[in-house]
Amino acid sequence: MPDPSQRDLMLQQEASQQIGGRVELSEAEQHLNTILHKLKEHDMTAPQFPPAMHFFKARNLIQRSPVFRLIQKMPKGAALHIHSSSLVSEDWLVKNVTYRPNCYICFTWDQSVRFLFSNHTPFPRWGCSFWKLLETLRANLRDPTDFDNSLMQNLTLFTEDPEKAYPTQESVWERFEQIFLAVSGLITHAPVFKDFVYRGLEQLYNDNVMYLELRTGLSRTYELDGTIHDQEWSLRAYKTVAQQFMEKHPDFLGTRIIITVHRVLSVSQVKAAIMEAIRMQKVYPEIVAGFDLVGREDSGRSLWYFREALSLPSELGISLPFFFHAGETDSEGTEVDENILDALLFNTSRIGHGYALTHHPLAKEVSRKRGVAVEVCPISNQVLKLVSDLRNHPAAVLMAEGHPVVISSDDPGMFGSSGLSYDFYEAFVGIGGLSAHLGTLKELAMNSIRYSSLSPSVKDRAIAIWQRKWDNFILENSPQRFATDKI
Amino acid sequence: MPDPSQRDLMLQQEASQQIGGRVELSEAEQHLNTILHKLKEHDMTAPQFPPAMHFFKARNLIQRSPVFRLIQKMPKGAALHIHSSSLVSEDWLVKNVTYRPNCYICFTWDQSVRFLFSNHTPFPRWGCSFWKLLETLRANLRDPTDFDNSLMQNLTLFTEDPEKAYPTQESVWERFEQIFLAVSGLITHAPVFKDFVYRGLEQLYNDNVMYLELRTGLSRTYELDGTIHDQEWSLRAYKTVAQQFMEKHPDFLGTRIIITVHRVLSVSQVKAAIMEAIRMQKVYPEIVAGFDLVGREDSGRSLWYFREALSLPSELGISLPFFFHAGETDSEGTEVDENILDALLFNTSRIGHGYALTHHPLAKEVSRKRGVAVEVCPISNQVLKLVSDLRNHPAAVLMAEGHPVVISSDDPGMFGSSGLSYDFYEAFVGIGGLSAHLGTLKELAMNSIRYSSLSPSVKDRAIAIWQRKWDNFILENSPQRFATDKI
Ligand SMILES: [Zn+2]
Ligand SMILES: [Zn+2]
Repeated sequence: MPDPSQRDLMLQQEASQQIGGRVELSEAEQHLNTILHKLKEHDMTAPQFPPAMHFFKARNLIQRSPVFRLIQKMPKGAALHIHSSSLVSEDWLVKNVTYRPNCYICFTWDQSVRFLFSNHTPFPRWGCSFWKLLETLRANLRDPTDFDNSLMQNLTLFTEDPEKAYPTQESVWERFEQIFLAVSGLITHAPVFKDFVYRGLEQLYNDNVMYLELRTGLSRTYELDGTIHDQEWSLRAYKTVAQQFMEKHPDFLGTRIIITVHRVLSVSQVKAAIMEAIRMQKVYPEIVAGFDLVGREDSGRSLWYFREALSLPSELGISLPFFFHAGETDSEGTEVDENILDALLFNTSRIGHGYALTHHPLAKEVSRKRGVAVEVCPISNQVLKLVSDLRNHPAAVLMAEGHPVVISSDDPGMFGSSGLSYDFYEAFVGIGGLSAHLGTLKELAMNSIRYSSLSPSVKDRAIAIWQRKWDNFILENSPQRFATDKI
Repeated sequence: MPDPSQRDLMLQQEASQQIGGRVELSEAEQHLNTILHKLKEHDMTAPQFPPAMHFFKARNLIQRSPVFRLIQKMPKGAALHIHSSSLVSEDWLVKNVTYRPNCYICFTWDQSVRFLFSNHTPFPRWGCSFWKLLETLRANLRDPTDFDNSLMQNLTLFTEDPEKAYPTQESVWERFEQIFLAVSGLITHAPVFKDFVYRGLEQLYNDNVMYLELRTGLSRTYELDGTIHDQEWSLRAYKTVAQQFMEKHPDFLGTRIIITVHRVLSVSQVKAAIMEAIRMQKVYPEIVAGFDLVGREDSGRSLWYFREALSLPSELGISLPFFFHAGETDSEGTEVDENILDALLFNTSRIGHGYALTHHPLAKEVSRKRGVAVEVCPISNQVLKLVSDLRNHPAAVLMAEGHPVVISSDDPGMFGSSGLSYDFYEAFVGIGGLSAHLGTLKELAMNSIRYSSLSPSVKDRAIAIWQRKWDNFILENSPQRFATDKI
């Protein structure tokens, strides 16, 4: 018979390789971990297992899970992969923004809406009905609640029957890009924009997130009279709003910006965007973190296609950190699938999604050796139809191997998730399975600071603040207050 | 800019790691490979991509795919993971077996059927209607075709709307085990049994499979008068039938048996079964390959639970090869999930399924170093609801890393697949993606001989026969005959 103690040793050895496997837990942490394990077992043996279901159907179940409630309270560190357009949830957009004066709406031929703030009726837009002032429209409605609900449906992918609404990857991406257009008229109105950013930081802060690296195209904002601000205006607005927020919340570390352009652009357009990003980084080094390309990889241009543009910084001897989306695909062996290797060849600082990374042993090794963290966004990958049952998410392999990984939410407003807790839940319960423990959560949270773009000294400060929060979290949720028999 | 030739080198290096990555293709093979690549691209960009769909819905599409037709013609080597009860397709069972004289049927309260051959009306069975002679029953039917179709529905999981019929893993497993009971009355009738085995070999042979390692519980067979044969009778029948088959098909290498018991048994029962397997191996060394435990891992007893029984052979100084099902689960971190490591600790010769292997880096390393091949059964894993889109099958990681892998079909009769071609298609197009090429198929076929239980000298003979078939396959499907412009 195999020696049982030898067997235990192998099981321990394997367990120690995983993310959090070498984190030493204090006695209080061990107590909490024991409870957490039981709570998770409970979720895993329930008739409906949330990570195996579409998030839109699982959200209610997750909200009721004690594991989720604990994760909500947990200091999760930083959100390193969120796009600006879906930073804030749709109900705030409808209930707050669309109720502001001078908000016009038109209805597009393809079942969407557009918004515009204006001090006069805007010039008709191609493909859209005549503009109507929302205030007037609502005054004539019998049931504004119903109308507001339908507006919300236009500003999020969240829906009750996602399989029916989005039968294919193509259809969900089409709706996804449609919603970006709908949202943009609302949030690029200059006064709204600042409130929007503030509200976004607030939602993260309330979810116990302490810092944000935001991917944004820095859309130009506009005033009521049609005046248009340049990209720098937005950049300064991010900075000012973050400062205002930090004054009220000194334990929040602000936001840094990853400037993005859509991969639909031409090489020369991307070249120009990179030159502009370099310029802005020079002027605002404290807030510009780097550069990325966005849009669906499967139907878009590859990183290698943009190689001339992406080599510009190094050719100029300038360091512009890259944070490339790469490998957000299940098309193995295609050109798109080479993005992961190319991201690494262009010295990316992190990999957005890296869903296909486990299919590339060489790239995986490079990413690990260089400490290039993978930004895993479970709910995004599920909603955008790469994987249905999150237990099959390839990050399970990365987590088991102790690969550098951070958890993020990609487009929380779009997916009905808000903050990081839902994605942490999916990663912890679904992807990590019963192997993942409190040490896993701890390492994932610390990873988000470790692999951020913050300077070493700010990182140290961040870790110190986070550690204080963590200790407090353990204290407040220790078995004395959170006894197993209450479960 | 990253040096393009350096980049090519890295892409090549990665490609060479995968299964088949180091297979050198002849000029004729390269020509065929080019065509195959184009055909696969065609399947991958079609509006409906079969490996992303449930096999029951994809089967028609697959049958029309030129990639599939080529795979059908390809000599695929050996089938190393098939269970006896589902060796033959349900239409043969209904159209041939149930039309034989003296076949009785009863209908169970839980929507299934039982069969029994008897020279008198059998004694009523608990939970079932009175027995009816099928001949009489059919004579009174207006539409026997309709009736036969409904019988077939009782002998296979295959159905038009699988998501509706089997909403959960539990429900599909329940039906699965139900069908085994329904089939058993038919195939354990001694005269049927021999024909059944012959027919099974024939189906494999027609699919260009040349050897079978069959997992079977060696059920006792019965005669019309109720006489019951012992397990040795079945073993001898396998041997005799295989010999008869080989006389007519000298390029077929026969079958060897992996004796199985259900994991629902007690430790002492498994001990007894192992002692009996050791005895039979001694008497029939040419046909008994080894031992395995079957039944759903998730709800069954773990290998470690049976440790006393499984250590018996080594304690007695006897070698009884194990071929354990292990890791056919998505419950990470549970006891079930330890089966993979335990299979290796008990020196398993191969791993059945190993679906969870990529979550266990240590076990994966051991399996690779020891050359313990993983028997990947894509359609089985999909039908039994471990994964829906086969592009997410973890074997993609194993294939990319060049892990020892063989492809098999587990329960072809049950899944409506027959032979190995459907599973090869899913593995080649779905799991392997565009990276997999003719070299991959070649290595997978050769693996099935390399990792079989055949003796080294028989393996050499098998490889020689296979090579001849392969060369012929290349010759017959070379571009001259199979031009791209015909596609
Ligand atoms: Zn993203
Ligand atoms: Zn099996």
